[in-house]
Amino acid sequence: MARWEPNAQERLVRAALDLFVERGYDATTVAEIADRAGLTKSTFFRHFADKREVLFRGQGDMAARFAEAIRGAPAGTTTVGCLAAALESVADTFTEERRALARQRRAVIEAHSELKERELLKMARVRAAVAEALRDRGVDDSTVLLATELGLLALAASYVRWTEAPDGPSYTEIAHATLGDLQERAAELGAEGVR
Amino acid sequence: MARWEPNAQERLVRAALDLFVERGYDATTVAEIADRAGLTKSTFFRHFADKREVLFRGQGDMAARFAEAIRGAPAGTTTVGCLAAALESVADTFTEERRALARQRRAVIEAHSELKERELLKMARVRAAVAEALRDRGVDDSTVLLATELGLLALAASYVRWTEAPDGPSYTEIAHATLGDLQERAAELGAEGVR
Repeated sequence: MARWEPNAQERLVRAALDLFVERGYDATTVAEIADRAGLTKSTFFRHFADKREVLFRGQGDMAARFAEAIRGAPAGTTTVGCLAAALESVADTFTEERRALARQRRAVIEAHSELKERELLKMARVRAAVAEALRDRGVDDSTVLLATELGLLALAASYVRWTEAPDGPSYTEIAHATLGDLQERAAELGAEGVR
Repeated sequence: MARWEPNAQERLVRAALDLFVERGYDATTVAEIADRAGLTKSTFFRHFADKREVLFRGQGDMAARFAEAIRGAPAGTTTVGCLAAALESVADTFTEERRALARQRRAVIEAHSELKERELLKMARVRAAVAEALRDRGVDDSTVLLATELGLLALAASYVRWTEAPDGPSYTEIAHATLGDLQERAAELGAEGVR
């Protein structure tokens, strides 16, 4: 019978990320992760299907949460307001305890082309979900295209800024500032002459 | 010795696209393309390395041309002006004679996941080239991110609109209108409140 292990999942994530950074993702085995966490391989497999899932689990629903936040925004919410709601909807994933882990995660993914592709695919799903949710609110096609990119840029930049500043502002604060910054650039580009 | 064949390359492109649409890309052989064009296989291989090159040849330098146009824009040109110059720089590829062929090309690529990936890769190269060229002009990071997406959205939408309207305005006219349209949306998004 499986013994209940306190914080097993969190311990496994920490052990895995430490090993991925130390030895590289490919060179790390599930046995080593379990061992470093002081747990058994079978405990690992009760929490994760494989070592890749340590990096991507719980993030698979990001597209769904973004879409839900946009669909659930009160009638009359601006398009940018919908994007802000979408960015806020994942704040409980980007908590203070996870900031250092997220930074390690980013480094591991950046160093590995297959993991980078997986991350790009995740972002493509978020992009499609945002576009569809905005379209469903009656936003016109051109605005959907541009607003979706604005939202995706804000998400990517916020995530990087959040992981890079261990004692900096919270993810939510960063996301709002980043979205506001991009909005300003949009206004500037919108006002420019073509020559 | 190879015989000189008038318009061999164009005849091969037409034959290939017709066959790709009729039979599917995978089911079409180089021998069939040459045969349909009234030419030999060795003539085909003097013009193209393989059948995929029929779809992507001459387009490989799009990233370079975009970058060159942005770098070559006079000092003081606005960021949007640089994007307009980039879009204009490929107008000699999107000529009237090629509009119907480009429409066939799009249909073939859309129906084939590997070709779609190849097209996405091409766009990723254009994206990277545009971002780097704008950065080299001293444009700030956030504006580079947003302006690059604006340029890429304008390119993609212009290409679709141009191929979809056989008797419509020229590519250059469409590109300017599309960029202007996206600029308006940028201004609107920039002016919105967050609630």
